[in-house]
Amino acid sequence: MALPDDLILDAADEVAIRQNLTLVALGKAPADLAIEVGKLLSVHSRQWLEDQEIIVCGRRIAYVGPRGSYRGRVAERVSYPDLMAVPGFGEVHKHIESTHLTPEFEAALVLPRGNTWTCEASHEFANVNGARNTEFWQKARKAGSQLKVFIQPGSAVPPSAWEESGGYYGYEEQKAFLGGDLSVTSLDEVMDWPAVWNPDNPGYVRMWGMIGATFEMRGVVEGHGSGLTDPHDISAFAAAGLSSDHEVWALDEAWDRLQRGIFVELRPFSYDVIIPGLIERGLADWSNIAFTTDDRSASETLEKGASDYNVRFAIEHGLAPEIAIQCATINPARHMRIDQWVGSITPGRYADIVLLDELASLSIAHVYADGKLVSDGTRFVGALPEIDWPDWASRTMNIGRTLSAADFAIAAPEGRQTVNAAVLRPFHWNEDFLVEELAVVDGAVQRDAGRLITKWALVDRYRGDGAVARMFWTGCGPEDPETALACSVAHDSHNVWAIGSDDAAMAKAVNRLQEIGGGWVLVHRGEIAGEVRYEIGGLMTARSAEALDTEMQAFYRAAEKVSWMYKPSALNLWKPGFPEFLIFATLTCSPWRWVLVAPSELAPEGFVNVQTGETHKVVW
Amino acid sequence: MALPDDLILDAADEVAIRQNLTLVALGKAPADLAIEVGKLLSVHSRQWLEDQEIIVCGRRIAYVGPRGSYRGRVAERVSYPDLMAVPGFGEVHKHIESTHLTPEFEAALVLPRGNTWTCEASHEFANVNGARNTEFWQKARKAGSQLKVFIQPGSAVPPSAWEESGGYYGYEEQKAFLGGDLSVTSLDEVMDWPAVWNPDNPGYVRMWGMIGATFEMRGVVEGHGSGLTDPHDISAFAAAGLSSDHEVWALDEAWDRLQRGIFVELRPFSYDVIIPGLIERGLADWSNIAFTTDDRSASETLEKGASDYNVRFAIEHGLAPEIAIQCATINPARHMRIDQWVGSITPGRYADIVLLDELASLSIAHVYADGKLVSDGTRFVGALPEIDWPDWASRTMNIGRTLSAADFAIAAPEGRQTVNAAVLRPFHWNEDFLVEELAVVDGAVQRDAGRLITKWALVDRYRGDGAVARMFWTGCGPEDPETALACSVAHDSHNVWAIGSDDAAMAKAVNRLQEIGGGWVLVHRGEIAGEVRYEIGGLMTARSAEALDTEMQAFYRAAEKVSWMYKPSALNLWKPGFPEFLIFATLTCSPWRWVLVAPSELAPEGFVNVQTGETHKVVW
Repeated sequence: MALPDDLILDAADEVAIRQNLTLVALGKAPADLAIEVGKLLSVHSRQWLEDQEIIVCGRRIAYVGPRGSYRGRVAERVSYPDLMAVPGFGEVHKHIESTHLTPEFEAALVLPRGNTWTCEASHEFANVNGARNTEFWQKARKAGSQLKVFIQPGSAVPPSAWEESGGYYGYEEQKAFLGGDLSVTSLDEVMDWPAVWNPDNPGYVRMWGMIGATFEMRGVVEGHGSGLTDPHDISAFAAAGLSSDHEVWALDEAWDRLQRGIFVELRPFSYDVIIPGLIERGLADWSNIAFTTDDRSASETLEKGASDYNVRFAIEHGLAPEIAIQCATINPARHMRIDQWVGSITPGRYADIVLLDELASLSIAHVYADGKLVSDGTRFVGALPEIDWPDWASRTMNIGRTLSAADFAIAAPEGRQTVNAAVLRPFHWNEDFLVEELAVVDGAVQRDAGRLITKWALVDRYRGDGAVARMFWTGCGPEDPETALACSVAHDSHNVWAIGSDDAAMAKAVNRLQEIGGGWVLVHRGEIAGEVRYEIGGLMTARSAEALDTEMQAFYRAAEKVSWMYKPSALNLWKPGFPEFLIFATLTCSPWRWVLVAPSELAPEGFVNVQTGETHKVVW
Repeated sequence: MALPDDLILDAADEVAIRQNLTLVALGKAPADLAIEVGKLLSVHSRQWLEDQEIIVCGRRIAYVGPRGSYRGRVAERVSYPDLMAVPGFGEVHKHIESTHLTPEFEAALVLPRGNTWTCEASHEFANVNGARNTEFWQKARKAGSQLKVFIQPGSAVPPSAWEESGGYYGYEEQKAFLGGDLSVTSLDEVMDWPAVWNPDNPGYVRMWGMIGATFEMRGVVEGHGSGLTDPHDISAFAAAGLSSDHEVWALDEAWDRLQRGIFVELRPFSYDVIIPGLIERGLADWSNIAFTTDDRSASETLEKGASDYNVRFAIEHGLAPEIAIQCATINPARHMRIDQWVGSITPGRYADIVLLDELASLSIAHVYADGKLVSDGTRFVGALPEIDWPDWASRTMNIGRTLSAADFAIAAPEGRQTVNAAVLRPFHWNEDFLVEELAVVDGAVQRDAGRLITKWALVDRYRGDGAVARMFWTGCGPEDPETALACSVAHDSHNVWAIGSDDAAMAKAVNRLQEIGGGWVLVHRGEIAGEVRYEIGGLMTARSAEALDTEMQAFYRAAEKVSWMYKPSALNLWKPGFPEFLIFATLTCSPWRWVLVAPSELAPEGFVNVQTGETHKVVW
């Protein structure tokens, strides 16, 4: 009897696979591969085992025991007496869309870096095409990619009640996702905090519908607790049933979350303070801590690494390598309730093995995934299926019309020479917006480069009506005339944003973006000066990380020729130069307050306080 | 709006409870109780927090923070500045039926001993009345009992393909259990090992049906790996998807299971070798170890303790108290995927708190469960609902007729003076049965007290046909004439067993057992000499532990007057005196081989090798 292909998790397949695997373990059915290793890290006991062999059948581990002990037949035997085997690394919270690669190219990028499984924090593509989300993430895997993607449908589809996007997930959808597919694990990062605590929030019913469906289907409810530092807020977060937080910036935040039973998912930017701090406070039990990436571009991954970087960086900050490895293997797998499949080199799990030639530097010699060598040194030798992405994935820029300068103009009230304008500064989450007096010329409110005041717009790209919301921002954007930057990555609704010194340049940038199917477009002094194609969902490209990086570097060089406004920000989050970070400036989750969203039913002009629901005119 | 009663877990209720709890945590809705403590053990970080307060609403914890920090309204405040708060202890694998108390009286017994939640290893009552199992376990809780019972439907219903019982659980049943009720957590101890590995075993399809249903519904598949010591067997166990083992007797067994990703559930009888051994081997990570009780009678619990005994005994064997407490709280809760409800003193969980006045001796001052004081010192002050157990629970001795001596006679083949007889010795799991030559008198095969050969029978108590299987056993049973012992606790089918020096005495004992609804009956020298009522399911009594113990002690005294056969056994499992341990001699799981079961379709005479399916005559 042919065994299932074991690509997508399924209970009936799981039975057939494990029935056979049991016989293989007993030596009563043949195995495919024996991998002999000098050392093996048992992550269930944090103990090194000497001279072991790992017996593989299909994509799974059937047997682990002392070298030479397996009594069954093995088709092939490989030996690495000088190498150390540790489990394939896993991401507990990663937006693959932020690498800007489709899953098959993501696999080729991260597998040689030890990352063999990823919990896809899925509210990016889901906001582009919610109905096709599962299909999208499984396409590469079904075609043989060895990276296992566990899907976490996002609670942020749409991100808030004031946004409309290409997806809508509520109780029924979440129940269906979890009911239909074992590779769906959870409800991803519940981040619209007012919709959690405040019964009057218009997103309350949808949010709790998804949480309830996740409870009902025994999934994991993931949290996002950015900015919650008071014990009341952290207690409320835990009381709501949000099991984890990856928005942990400071040592006390990590500490206070652990004490309240919240699983802490650390991202490298905070390791310098958190890891030495936890060690100094004598943390004896790290089992409720994981490392994860969240967002990292292909270019940055090529430079720093993937999950391996997270582990290595933690070791550099003083953590014992074995604990650091647990934080990227068994800890996240157990938290996500997928430890029967990934996170350890033990029978029944996928044969995902990272072979190290040095522990302290986490130097990777080879990587196995699904029982196959996928990386020989740093050279990817795994499966890279060719995928013909269908229109539903590649034609997602439904703006519906060609825009003009007039679409970006902000009209003043009749007869005014100056107006009051609401002004936002990105990544400053103040209670109130700024108010500035701006000049009016020919009935249109003007920018003021002297005060670093520029124009910002969001264009709906789902409904096809080409609706535009616009307002004034400060501290960012191009200083040069006739210059604009547009992008279809706009967390988390992923409408199109544009920023510019000139309305016609903004229109030109957005129109070009429509033509290339999404990505980045830079218009400099009236001409298209650079572009990057994210032709899949407007978020990703179906090319290698290296190819994308080449295009991205060229784009960076074009962007370097632009003079960019700069105001140092409070938390030093805002860097001078090309404002790539603006892709996150459209967030609407905690701790954001006043934001601009694309025009929607509840926020027709787009300017809304997402914590209170208050709307306001952008000029008056 | 009235909140749900929060007794039985339900997703919709969970939403309503947590919506309110979130507001309470924020101080926006009123709380019921503040419990101030001098110290609080954070089991997620294994860290003591000083001077904390726990804010309770309904049965749950809403807030945890420094003493005096909560800003909301609290109806009542209690203060224990000199006490240490640790989470309520949980059982990850316990047969409450083995206490022989119904759940409301179990609660009264174990709550003062710190045990606030129990994963009920449910194949005892389930074999008596499978259809009513969930209803049975929830009856006391629904009536207000503060002990939380998580139901683990047993894979051993019936225990093997050669047995018939009052329950039948397969794919459909398991799927329905997990689908209908969040307090159902898992598939309990998969123990029919041949039905797991051997495709030819007649129980294979049913067993994998249950395993598959558990995968499908995201439950936990619990194992039972008794006697598995070879790396092939242990790997096969893990490869089959069995996540845990509580049948861990020796240090290497624990070690070898941990290395293969199997969660280890330790019972106290093995602590003396395993705990010092693991410490000596330098086990750095105890997160995959739990402590549990499995089976412990009310009398033994009164003498030693409940979960508190397990923790205390581990500390006595050298384990750090904080780790020992984790092994009875967060570790089992996380393994069983119920850590959002129990296992820690953190927001969102049930307010189950054990207050200690000394750590090293685990001295319990008070216990809270569901946010109520349930034990003032050792005095139970919790809810003890009066339950009128219905007939389906109390009338379960369906033997259907009055038995006579003839029912226990073993006929010799025509014309024989002697016969060969198959003889078993309990707890000797040999490949082959013993063969002894026995005399024939009036056509009936005779016991031989000189060789310690006696008669053993199993009477079906479900079908109503009064079918009896009989054979000869050795090394146990009464030496006195006209003496017999019968009992309706016969793991795990729970038919009626009887052992006796005389067929009429055996019939008398079983007939009396029918009259009292199950339990123990001793016939000594022709007269009823003692009895114990287990009138609920033939396994439990709806009385206090103290009342049962009084009856049990009287029974032990009657049994002491009997002269009992004794042969020291290989593993020293078999003790002289009253053979109470015979209730486990009817097991049919690994490592049992030749057994006697009640007459069934696949084993009409009852004598069968459960590993191979071979049957044999009992005399020839």
